Amino acid sequence: MAKPNKINLKDKFSKFTNLWSPKVIGELHGVSLKVVKVKGEFNWHHHDNEDELFWVIKGQLTIHFRDGDEILNPGELLIIPHKIEHKPEAKEEAEIVLIEPKETLNTGNVKTDKTIEKLEEI
Amino acid sequence: MAKPNKINLKDKFSKFTNLWSPKVIGELHGVSLKVVKVKGEFNWHHHDNEDELFWVIKGQLTIHFRDGDEILNPGELLIIPHKIEHKPEAKEEAEIVLIEPKETLNTGNVKTDKTIEKLEEI
Repeated sequence: MAKPNKINLKDKFSKFTNLWSPKVIGELHGVSLKVVKVKGEFNWHHHDNEDELFWVIKGQLTIHFRDGDEILNPGELLIIPHKIEHKPEAKEEAEIVLIEPKETLNTGNVKTDKTIEKLEEI
Repeated sequence: MAKPNKINLKDKFSKFTNLWSPKVIGELHGVSLKVVKVKGEFNWHHHDNEDELFWVIKGQLTIHFRDGDEILNPGELLIIPHKIEHKPEAKEEAEIVLIEPKETLNTGNVKTDKTIEKLEEI
């Protein structure tokens, strides 16, 4: 089997400009790595079964919870267990890596104009 | 359920100094996030069942394969499918995040003086 090739995050983020639209960059053991650019407010939602990890690469991301906020800067990450309601928000554009089960729907239990059913692989 | 707390990577890397000794910092869906400091040469090994992801946070990591090398700088990551033989090496100390199944043994199919059976959580 040939050797695998590395993934350069800067290169992946340069390939798209649209917001709140996760792109798949890799997978292992049923968990996908996704890159996403965000700006503004997302919807309140939760995931019935999927835990998800947010890792800030560039910019700042606030994750609102019903009992408080977490503010994430580059080099900081947050694992959100399933069933916990949350709302991501970024005042300025931010670059995020998501690690979550392949089948995770971005808007979780709700369907909104930001829902993306089929993710692109880049 | 209370909100989760963020993980700061710089803080995690400040908590230990020993080399080639992964520490668990989080988990989702059976996959662990681990931090590890490396310097020098590791052993050739493979994992029978586990895919593993190396993500360089600081420094430079070379992954040797039988058919060539991949050189990873910060912001670059590599997913190594199971069964592929590899040998990590870092000329200078480097800080790495590993993403792999919880039960992954660091030296895979071989037992060496670097084998660590039970990982610390930090």
